[in-house]
Amino acid sequence: MADLRKGKFILIYDDEKREGETDLVIASEFVTPESIKTMRKDGGGLIFLMISKEVANKLKLPFLADMYSHINNKYPILKELVPNDIPYDSKSSFSLYINHRKTFTGITDIDRSLTMKKFAELIKKTEKLNDGQAIKKFGSEFRSPGHIPICVGAEKLLDERKGHTELVISIMKMANLIPAGSGCEIMGDNGKALSKDKAKEYADKNGLVFLEGKAIIEAWKKWSK
Amino acid sequence: MADLRKGKFILIYDDEKREGETDLVIASEFVTPESIKTMRKDGGGLIFLMISKEVANKLKLPFLADMYSHINNKYPILKELVPNDIPYDSKSSFSLYINHRKTFTGITDIDRSLTMKKFAELIKKTEKLNDGQAIKKFGSEFRSPGHIPICVGAEKLLDERKGHTELVISIMKMANLIPAGSGCEIMGDNGKALSKDKAKEYADKNGLVFLEGKAIIEAWKKWSK
Repeated sequence: MADLRKGKFILIYDDEKREGETDLVIASEFVTPESIKTMRKDGGGLIFLMISKEVANKLKLPFLADMYSHINNKYPILKELVPNDIPYDSKSSFSLYINHRKTFTGITDIDRSLTMKKFAELIKKTEKLNDGQAIKKFGSEFRSPGHIPICVGAEKLLDERKGHTELVISIMKMANLIPAGSGCEIMGDNGKALSKDKAKEYADKNGLVFLEGKAIIEAWKKWSK
Repeated sequence: MADLRKGKFILIYDDEKREGETDLVIASEFVTPESIKTMRKDGGGLIFLMISKEVANKLKLPFLADMYSHINNKYPILKELVPNDIPYDSKSSFSLYINHRKTFTGITDIDRSLTMKKFAELIKKTEKLNDGQAIKKFGSEFRSPGHIPICVGAEKLLDERKGHTELVISIMKMANLIPAGSGCEIMGDNGKALSKDKAKEYADKNGLVFLEGKAIIEAWKKWSK
Protein backbone atom coordinates (compact mmCIF):
# COMPACT_ATOMS: atom_id res chain seq x y z
CA MET A 1 0.00 0.00 0.00
CA ALA A 2 3.00 2.24 0.50
CA ASP A 3 3.66 1.83 -3.21
CA LEU A 4 0.13 2.89 -4.07
CA ARG A 5 0.57 6.00 -1.96
CA LYS A 6 3.78 6.76 -3.84
CA GLY A 7 1.90 6.62 -7.14
CA LYS A 8 3.44 3.33 -8.25
CA PHE A 9 1.67 0.49 -10.00
CA ILE A 10 0.82 -2.66 -8.09
CA LEU A 11 -0.34 -5.97 -9.58
CA ILE A 12 -3.51 -7.59 -8.32
CA TYR A 13 -4.22 -11.19 -9.15
CA ASP A 14 -7.90 -12.06 -9.17
CA ASP A 15 -8.57 -15.79 -9.07
CA GLU A 16 -12.34 -15.44 -9.00
CA LYS A 17 -12.30 -15.69 -12.78
CA ARG A 18 -11.94 -19.05 -14.47
CA GLU A 19 -8.44 -18.63 -15.78
CA GLY A 20 -7.28 -16.07 -13.24
CA GLU A 21 -6.38 -12.57 -14.32
CA THR A 22 -3.85 -9.99 -13.19
CA ASP A 23 -4.48 -6.26 -13.32
CA LEU A 24 -2.00 -3.41 -13.39
CA VAL A 25 -3.44 -0.95 -10.87
CA ILE A 26 -2.58 2.60 -9.87
CA ALA A 27 -4.37 5.21 -7.74
CA SER A 28 -6.17 7.47 -10.23
CA GLU A 29 -4.98 10.62 -8.44
CA PHE A 30 -1.42 9.77 -9.53
CA VAL A 31 -2.09 8.84 -13.18
CA THR A 32 0.18 10.47 -15.78
CA PRO A 33 0.46 9.99 -19.56
CA GLU A 34 3.34 7.61 -18.77
CA SER A 35 0.98 5.47 -16.66
CA ILE A 36 -1.44 5.12 -19.58
CA LYS A 37 1.46 4.11 -21.82
CA THR A 38 2.52 1.44 -19.31
CA MET A 39 -1.02 0.10 -19.11
CA ARG A 40 -1.52 -0.11 -22.87
CA LYS A 41 1.95 -1.52 -23.59
CA ASP A 42 2.40 -3.91 -20.67
CA GLY A 43 -1.29 -4.56 -19.91
CA GLY A 44 -3.13 -4.46 -23.20
CA GLY A 45 -6.64 -4.97 -21.83
CA LEU A 46 -9.30 -2.39 -21.14
CA ILE A 47 -7.97 0.75 -19.44
CA PHE A 48 -10.67 1.62 -16.96
CA LEU A 49 -11.61 3.58 -13.90
CA MET A 50 -12.93 1.90 -10.77
CA ILE A 51 -14.92 3.81 -8.18
CA SER A 52 -16.87 3.09 -5.01
CA LYS A 53 -20.66 2.91 -4.87
CA GLU A 54 -20.67 5.99 -2.60
CA VAL A 55 -18.95 8.03 -5.31
CA ALA A 56 -21.33 6.68 -7.95
CA ASN A 57 -24.28 7.62 -5.72
CA LYS A 58 -22.93 11.10 -5.14
CA LEU A 59 -22.33 11.72 -8.85
CA LYS A 60 -25.55 9.91 -9.88
CA LEU A 61 -23.65 7.51 -12.08
CA PRO A 62 -25.99 4.67 -13.11
CA PHE A 63 -25.15 1.11 -14.03
CA LEU A 64 -25.54 0.87 -17.81
CA ALA A 65 -27.50 -2.35 -17.43
CA ASP A 66 -30.08 -0.62 -15.18
CA MET A 67 -30.26 2.35 -17.50
CA TYR A 68 -30.79 0.08 -20.48
CA SER A 69 -33.60 -1.74 -18.71
CA HIS A 70 -35.39 1.60 -18.18
CA ILE A 71 -35.32 2.53 -21.84
CA ASN A 72 -35.75 -0.81 -23.54
CA ASN A 73 -39.30 -0.06 -24.65
CA LYS A 74 -38.03 2.72 -26.84
CA TYR A 75 -34.92 0.75 -27.84
CA PRO A 76 -36.08 -2.88 -28.03
CA ILE A 77 -32.64 -4.11 -29.08
CA LEU A 78 -31.61 -3.58 -25.43
CA LYS A 79 -34.06 -6.30 -24.41
CA GLU A 80 -32.44 -8.68 -26.83
CA LEU A 81 -28.90 -7.85 -25.75
CA VAL A 82 -29.63 -8.13 -22.03
CA PRO A 83 -26.45 -9.34 -20.25
CA ASN A 84 -28.08 -12.16 -18.32
CA ASP A 85 -25.39 -14.72 -19.03
CA ILE A 86 -22.09 -13.17 -17.86
CA PRO A 87 -20.16 -16.30 -16.95
CA TYR A 88 -18.40 -14.89 -13.87
CA ASP A 89 -21.03 -12.54 -12.53
CA SER A 90 -24.70 -11.89 -11.98
CA LYS A 91 -24.48 -8.30 -13.13
CA SER A 92 -22.40 -5.98 -15.30
CA SER A 93 -20.54 -3.37 -13.23
CA PHE A 94 -20.13 -0.93 -16.14
CA SER A 95 -21.34 2.61 -15.73
CA LEU A 96 -20.88 5.43 -18.26
CA TYR A 97 -17.81 6.07 -20.45
CA ILE A 98 -16.46 9.58 -19.97
CA ASN A 99 -13.93 12.09 -21.35
CA HIS A 100 -12.70 15.24 -19.66
CA ARG A 101 -13.97 18.23 -21.63
CA LYS A 102 -10.41 19.45 -22.17
CA THR A 103 -9.46 16.29 -24.07
CA PHE A 104 -9.33 16.31 -27.86
CA THR A 105 -9.87 12.83 -29.29
CA GLY A 106 -10.01 11.43 -25.75
CA ILE A 107 -7.79 8.45 -26.53
CA THR A 108 -4.17 9.64 -26.45
CA ASP A 109 -2.08 8.99 -23.34
CA ILE A 110 -2.31 12.67 -22.47
CA ASP A 111 -6.09 12.67 -22.89
CA ARG A 112 -6.80 9.46 -21.00
CA SER A 113 -4.56 10.47 -18.10
CA LEU A 114 -6.25 13.87 -17.93
CA THR A 115 -9.68 12.22 -17.71
CA MET A 116 -8.55 9.85 -14.96
CA LYS A 117 -6.59 12.29 -12.80
CA LYS A 118 -9.25 14.98 -13.06
CA PHE A 119 -11.91 12.44 -12.11
CA ALA A 120 -10.05 11.61 -8.90
CA GLU A 121 -9.79 15.34 -8.20
CA LEU A 122 -13.51 15.72 -8.87
CA ILE A 123 -14.28 13.15 -6.17
CA LYS A 124 -12.28 15.22 -3.70
CA LYS A 125 -13.83 18.49 -4.85
CA THR A 126 -17.42 17.23 -4.64
CA GLU A 127 -17.12 15.64 -1.20
CA LYS A 128 -18.42 18.70 0.55
CA LEU A 129 -21.01 19.64 -2.10
CA ASN A 130 -24.65 18.63 -2.05
CA ASP A 131 -25.83 16.24 -4.77
CA GLY A 132 -27.20 18.93 -7.08
CA GLN A 133 -23.96 20.92 -6.95
CA ALA A 134 -21.90 17.77 -7.37
CA ILE A 135 -23.53 16.72 -10.64
CA LYS A 136 -23.27 20.30 -11.98
CA LYS A 137 -19.57 20.26 -11.20
CA PHE A 138 -19.20 16.81 -12.79
CA GLY A 139 -20.96 17.94 -15.97
CA SER A 140 -18.98 21.16 -16.19
CA GLU A 141 -15.77 19.14 -16.45
CA PHE A 142 -16.72 15.89 -18.20
CA ARG A 143 -18.79 14.59 -21.10
CA SER A 144 -20.27 11.22 -22.01
CA PRO A 145 -20.01 9.18 -24.23
CA GLY A 146 -16.26 9.08 -23.91
CA HIS A 147 -13.24 6.78 -23.87
CA ILE A 148 -12.84 5.92 -20.18
CA PRO A 149 -15.19 3.25 -18.88
CA ILE A 150 -16.16 3.52 -15.23
CA CYS A 151 -16.80 0.38 -13.19
CA VAL A 152 -18.67 0.72 -9.93
CA GLY A 153 -17.89 -1.49 -6.94
CA ALA A 154 -20.51 -3.20 -4.82
CA GLU A 155 -21.88 -1.12 -1.91
CA LYS A 156 -20.36 -3.35 0.76
CA LEU A 157 -17.18 -3.94 -1.23
CA LEU A 158 -15.46 -7.25 -0.42
CA ASP A 159 -18.17 -8.19 2.04
CA GLU A 160 -20.54 -8.36 -0.93
CA ARG A 161 -18.58 -9.13 -4.11
CA LYS A 162 -14.98 -10.07 -4.82
CA GLY A 163 -14.34 -8.71 -8.30
CA HIS A 164 -11.38 -6.56 -9.28
CA THR A 165 -13.28 -3.31 -8.71
CA GLU A 166 -13.99 -4.29 -5.09
CA LEU A 167 -10.39 -5.44 -4.55
CA VAL A 168 -9.06 -2.16 -5.89
CA ILE A 169 -11.45 0.16 -4.04
CA SER A 170 -10.88 -1.71 -0.78
CA ILE A 171 -7.15 -1.30 -1.06
CA MET A 172 -7.52 2.40 -1.93
CA LYS A 173 -9.58 2.85 1.22
CA MET A 174 -7.08 0.98 3.37
CA ALA A 175 -4.32 3.17 1.90
CA ASN A 176 -6.40 6.28 2.68
CA LEU A 177 -6.41 7.39 -0.96
CA ILE A 178 -9.22 8.88 -3.07
CA PRO A 179 -11.44 5.84 -3.82
CA ALA A 180 -10.73 5.78 -7.56
CA GLY A 181 -8.40 3.27 -9.12
CA SER A 182 -7.13 3.00 -12.68
CA GLY A 183 -6.41 -0.42 -14.03
CA CYS A 184 -5.82 -2.63 -17.03
CA GLU A 185 -5.88 -6.41 -17.41
CA ILE A 186 -2.53 -7.92 -18.44
CA MET A 187 -2.76 -9.96 -21.62
CA GLY A 188 -0.54 -12.88 -22.55
CA ASP A 189 0.94 -13.77 -25.91
CA ASN A 190 -1.37 -16.75 -26.33
CA GLY A 191 -4.64 -14.87 -26.78
CA LYS A 192 -5.56 -15.22 -23.11
CA ALA A 193 -4.84 -13.34 -19.88
CA LEU A 194 -1.19 -13.49 -18.79
CA SER A 195 -0.58 -16.50 -16.53
CA LYS A 196 -0.03 -15.95 -12.83
CA ASP A 197 3.61 -17.09 -13.03
CA LYS A 198 4.39 -14.73 -15.87
CA ALA A 199 2.62 -11.89 -14.11
CA LYS A 200 4.82 -12.51 -11.06
CA GLU A 201 7.90 -12.47 -13.29
CA TYR A 202 6.80 -9.14 -14.74
CA ALA A 203 6.31 -7.75 -11.22
CA ASP A 204 9.78 -8.92 -10.12
CA LYS A 205 11.44 -7.53 -13.21
CA ASN A 206 9.82 -4.14 -12.73
CA GLY A 207 10.11 -3.95 -8.97
CA LEU A 208 6.35 -3.97 -8.48
CA VAL A 209 4.32 -5.46 -5.64
CA PHE A 210 2.25 -8.52 -6.62
CA LEU A 211 -0.84 -9.05 -4.48
CA GLU A 212 -3.25 -11.94 -4.50
CA GLY A 213 -6.95 -11.18 -4.20
CA LYS A 214 -7.18 -13.41 -1.14
CA ALA A 215 -4.48 -11.43 0.69
CA ILE A 216 -6.47 -8.24 0.10
CA ILE A 217 -9.65 -9.96 1.33
CA GLU A 218 -7.85 -11.04 4.52
CA ALA A 219 -6.46 -7.55 5.12
CA TRP A 220 -9.90 -6.05 4.48
CA LYS A 221 -11.53 -8.33 7.04
CA LYS A 222 -9.15 -7.09 9.73
CA TRP A 223 -9.22 -3.44 8.67
CA SER A 224 -12.99 -3.10 8.28
CA LYS A 225 -13.84 -4.68 11.63
CA MET B 1 -7.92 -2.75 -51.27
CA ALA B 2 -6.45 -6.02 -52.41
CA ASP B 3 -4.71 -6.18 -49.01
CA LEU B 4 -7.99 -5.66 -47.19
CA ARG B 5 -9.52 -8.51 -49.16
CA LYS B 6 -6.61 -10.72 -48.15
CA GLY B 7 -7.29 -9.98 -44.48
CA LYS B 8 -4.23 -7.76 -44.04
CA PHE B 9 -4.06 -4.54 -42.05
CA ILE B 10 -3.91 -1.22 -43.86
CA LEU B 11 -3.08 2.16 -42.33
CA ILE B 12 -5.43 5.08 -42.80
CA TYR B 13 -4.26 8.58 -42.02
CA ASP B 14 -7.04 10.97 -41.09
CA ASP B 15 -6.03 14.60 -41.24
CA GLU B 16 -9.44 15.92 -40.26
CA LYS B 17 -8.28 15.88 -36.65
CA ARG B 18 -6.07 18.65 -35.31
CA GLU B 19 -2.88 16.66 -34.98
CA GLY B 20 -3.68 14.03 -37.58
CA GLU B 21 -4.15 10.43 -36.57
CA THR B 22 -3.39 7.09 -38.18
CA ASP B 23 -5.53 4.01 -37.64
CA LEU B 24 -4.62 0.37 -38.06
CA VAL B 25 -7.59 -1.07 -39.95
CA ILE B 26 -8.66 -4.57 -40.93
CA ALA B 27 -11.89 -6.00 -42.33
CA SER B 28 -13.78 -7.39 -39.33
CA GLU B 29 -14.61 -10.62 -41.17
CA PHE B 30 -10.88 -11.50 -41.12
CA VAL B 31 -10.09 -10.59 -37.50
CA THR B 32 -8.17 -13.21 -35.49
CA PRO B 33 -6.71 -13.13 -31.94
CA GLU B 34 -3.41 -12.22 -33.62
CA SER B 35 -5.06 -9.11 -35.14
CA ILE B 36 -6.22 -7.92 -31.73
CA LYS B 37 -2.69 -8.43 -30.40
CA THR B 38 -1.28 -6.34 -33.25
CA MET B 39 -3.80 -3.57 -32.59
CA ARG B 40 -3.13 -3.39 -28.86
CA LYS B 41 0.66 -3.70 -29.17
CA ASP B 42 1.31 -1.57 -32.24
CA GLY B 43 -1.78 0.67 -32.05
CA GLY B 44 -2.54 1.18 -28.38
CA GLY B 45 -5.70 3.27 -28.82
CA LEU B 46 -9.30 2.15 -28.61
CA ILE B 47 -9.96 -1.15 -30.40
CA PHE B 48 -13.34 -0.60 -32.01
CA LEU B 49 -15.80 -1.77 -34.59
CA MET B 50 -17.03 0.52 -37.37
CA ILE B 51 -20.27 -0.17 -39.21
CA SER B 52 -22.46 1.52 -41.80
CA LYS B 53 -25.67 3.33 -40.92
CA GLU B 54 -27.62 0.71 -42.92
CA VAL B 55 -26.33 -2.04 -40.65
CA ALA B 56 -27.09 0.05 -37.55
CA ASN B 57 -30.62 0.62 -38.86
CA LYS B 58 -31.14 -3.05 -39.57
CA LEU B 59 -29.90 -4.09 -36.12
CA LYS B 60 -31.62 -1.13 -34.38
CA LEU B 61 -28.36 0.07 -32.90
CA PRO B 62 -28.86 3.57 -31.47
CA PHE B 63 -26.35 6.35 -31.02
CA LEU B 64 -25.58 6.50 -27.31
CA ALA B 65 -25.97 10.27 -27.34
CA ASP B 66 -29.52 9.96 -28.73
CA MET B 67 -30.37 7.24 -26.26
CA TYR B 68 -29.05 9.32 -23.40
CA SER B 69 -31.14 12.29 -24.46
CA HIS B 70 -34.27 10.10 -24.28
CA ILE B 71 -33.66 9.01 -20.74
CA ASN B 72 -32.12 12.09 -19.19
CA ASN B 73 -35.20 12.89 -17.13
CA LYS B 74 -34.75 9.71 -15.18
CA TYR B 75 -30.94 10.06 -15.17
CA PRO B 76 -30.31 13.82 -14.91
CA ILE B 77 -26.55 13.36 -14.89
CA LEU B 78 -26.86 12.65 -18.63
CA LYS B 79 -28.05 16.23 -19.15
CA GLU B 80 -24.97 17.52 -17.40
CA LEU B 81 -22.58 15.29 -19.33
CA VAL B 82 -24.06 16.09 -22.74
CA PRO B 83 -21.27 15.92 -25.36
CA ASN B 84 -21.96 19.29 -26.95
CA ASP B 85 -18.34 20.35 -27.15
CA ILE B 86 -16.48 17.61 -29.04
CA PRO B 87 -13.70 19.64 -30.63
CA TYR B 88 -13.60 17.80 -33.97
CA ASP B 89 -17.23 16.90 -34.42
CA SER B 90 -20.83 17.95 -33.92
CA LYS B 91 -21.91 14.56 -32.66
CA SER B 92 -20.55 11.44 -30.98
CA SER B 93 -20.63 8.41 -33.30
CA PHE B 94 -20.57 5.87 -30.46
CA SER B 95 -23.26 3.22 -30.32
CA LEU B 96 -23.43 0.33 -27.83
CA TYR B 97 -20.49 -1.70 -26.51
CA ILE B 98 -20.99 -5.41 -27.11
CA ASN B 99 -19.54 -8.85 -26.29
CA HIS B 100 -20.30 -12.10 -28.05
CA ARG B 101 -22.17 -14.36 -25.63
CA LYS B 102 -19.51 -17.05 -25.99
CA THR B 103 -16.80 -14.75 -24.60
CA PHE B 104 -15.68 -15.06 -20.98
CA THR B 105 -14.26 -11.78 -19.68
CA GLY B 106 -14.71 -10.25 -23.13
CA ILE B 107 -11.31 -8.58 -23.14
CA THR B 108 -8.72 -11.23 -24.11
CA ASP B 109 -7.46 -11.36 -27.69
CA ILE B 110 -9.50 -14.52 -28.24
CA ASP B 111 -12.64 -12.89 -26.84
CA ARG B 112 -12.35 -9.57 -28.67
CA SER B 113 -11.63 -11.28 -31.98
CA LEU B 114 -14.61 -13.58 -31.50
CA THR B 115 -16.91 -10.59 -30.91
CA MET B 116 -15.61 -8.79 -34.00
CA LYS B 117 -15.56 -11.70 -36.43
CA LYS B 118 -18.96 -12.96 -35.32
CA PHE B 119 -20.39 -9.48 -35.69
CA ALA B 120 -19.27 -9.35 -39.33
CA GLU B 121 -20.87 -12.77 -39.84
CA LEU B 122 -24.06 -11.52 -38.19
CA ILE B 123 -24.30 -8.71 -40.74
CA LYS B 124 -24.15 -11.31 -43.51
CA LYS B 125 -26.62 -13.63 -41.79
CA THR B 126 -29.20 -10.93 -41.12
CA GLU B 127 -29.15 -9.40 -44.61
CA LYS B 128 -32.10 -11.47 -45.78
CA LEU B 129 -34.02 -11.36 -42.48
CA ASN B 130 -36.71 -8.85 -41.61
CA ASP B 131 -35.95 -6.37 -38.82
CA GLY B 132 -37.71 -8.33 -36.07
CA GLN B 133 -35.82 -11.51 -36.96
CA ALA B 134 -32.56 -9.61 -37.28
CA ILE B 135 -32.64 -8.17 -33.77
CA LYS B 136 -33.62 -11.57 -32.33
CA LYS B 137 -30.64 -13.11 -34.05
CA PHE B 138 -28.38 -10.27 -32.84
CA GLY B 139 -29.55 -10.71 -29.24
CA SER B 140 -29.20 -14.48 -29.36
CA GLU B 141 -25.49 -14.07 -30.09
CA PHE B 142 -24.43 -10.85 -28.35
CA ARG B 143 -24.88 -8.98 -25.09
CA SER B 144 -24.44 -5.35 -24.04
CA PRO B 145 -22.74 -3.76 -22.08
CA GLY B 146 -19.55 -5.31 -23.41
CA HIS B 147 -15.97 -4.55 -24.37
CA ILE B 148 -16.21 -3.71 -28.07
CA PRO B 149 -17.42 -0.22 -28.88
CA ILE B 150 -19.34 0.20 -32.12
CA CYS B 151 -19.07 3.41 -34.11
CA VAL B 152 -21.69 4.12 -36.74
CA GLY B 153 -20.84 5.95 -39.95
CA ALA B 154 -22.91 8.77 -41.40
CA GLU B 155 -25.76 7.68 -43.70
CA LYS B 156 -24.18 9.18 -46.82
CA LEU B 157 -20.67 8.22 -45.77
CA LEU B 158 -17.95 10.46 -47.21
CA ASP B 159 -20.53 12.66 -48.91
CA GLU B 160 -21.71 13.65 -45.44
CA ARG B 161 -18.84 13.31 -42.94
CA LYS B 162 -15.15 12.51 -43.27
CA GLY B 163 -14.27 10.80 -39.99
CA HIS B 164 -12.40 7.53 -39.72
CA THR B 165 -15.60 5.47 -39.57
CA GLU B 166 -16.74 6.87 -42.93
CA LEU B 167 -13.28 6.39 -44.48
CA VAL B 168 -13.22 2.78 -43.33
CA ILE B 169 -16.77 1.86 -44.32
CA SER B 170 -16.33 3.49 -47.73
CA ILE B 171 -13.23 1.47 -48.42
CA MET B 172 -14.93 -1.74 -47.26
CA LYS B 173 -17.73 -1.05 -49.73
CA MET B 174 -15.32 -0.34 -52.58
CA ALA B 175 -13.52 -3.60 -51.74
CA ASN B 176 -16.87 -5.43 -51.77
CA LEU B 177 -16.40 -6.64 -48.19
CA ILE B 178 -18.90 -6.89 -45.33
CA PRO B 179 -19.30 -3.24 -44.20
CA ALA B 180 -17.68 -3.73 -40.81
CA GLY B 181 -14.15 -2.60 -40.06
CA SER B 182 -12.01 -3.13 -37.00
CA GLY B 183 -9.55 -0.45 -36.09
CA CYS B 184 -7.29 1.10 -33.51
CA GLU B 185 -5.58 4.49 -33.34
CA ILE B 186 -1.78 4.33 -33.33
CA MET B 187 -0.25 6.07 -30.35
CA GLY B 188 3.19 7.64 -30.22
CA ASP B 189 5.74 7.60 -27.41
CA ASN B 190 5.15 11.26 -26.58
CA GLY B 191 1.64 10.97 -25.18
CA LYS B 192 0.03 11.93 -28.50
CA ALA B 193 -1.02 10.11 -31.68
CA LEU B 194 1.91 8.72 -33.70
CA SER B 195 3.15 11.29 -36.21
CA LYS B 196 2.41 10.78 -39.89
CA ASP B 197 6.08 10.22 -40.73
CA LYS B 198 6.48 7.58 -38.07
CA ALA B 199 3.24 5.91 -39.11
CA LYS B 200 4.61 5.71 -42.67
CA GLU B 201 7.84 4.18 -41.35
CA TYR B 202 5.81 1.59 -39.44
CA ALA B 203 3.86 0.76 -42.60
CA ASP B 204 7.06 0.36 -44.65
CA LYS B 205 8.71 -1.81 -42.03
CA ASN B 206 5.70 -4.11 -41.86
CA GLY B 207 4.86 -4.16 -45.55
CA LEU B 208 1.51 -2.47 -45.03
CA VAL B 209 -0.33 -0.07 -47.31
CA PHE B 210 -0.51 3.52 -46.01
CA LEU B 211 -3.52 5.47 -47.28
CA GLU B 212 -4.33 9.12 -46.80
CA GLY B 213 -7.92 10.05 -46.06
CA LYS B 214 -7.96 12.36 -49.09
CA ALA B 215 -6.99 9.51 -51.44
CA ILE B 216 -9.93 7.48 -50.16
CA ILE B 217 -12.23 10.47 -50.58
CA GLU B 218 -11.04 10.86 -54.21
CA ALA B 219 -11.54 7.16 -54.94
CA TRP B 220 -14.97 7.27 -53.32
CA LYS B 221 -16.04 10.20 -55.51
CA LYS B 222 -15.27 8.21 -58.63
CA TRP B 223 -16.63 4.89 -57.36
CA SER B 224 -19.92 6.21 -55.98
CA LYS B 225 -20.87 8.21 -59.06
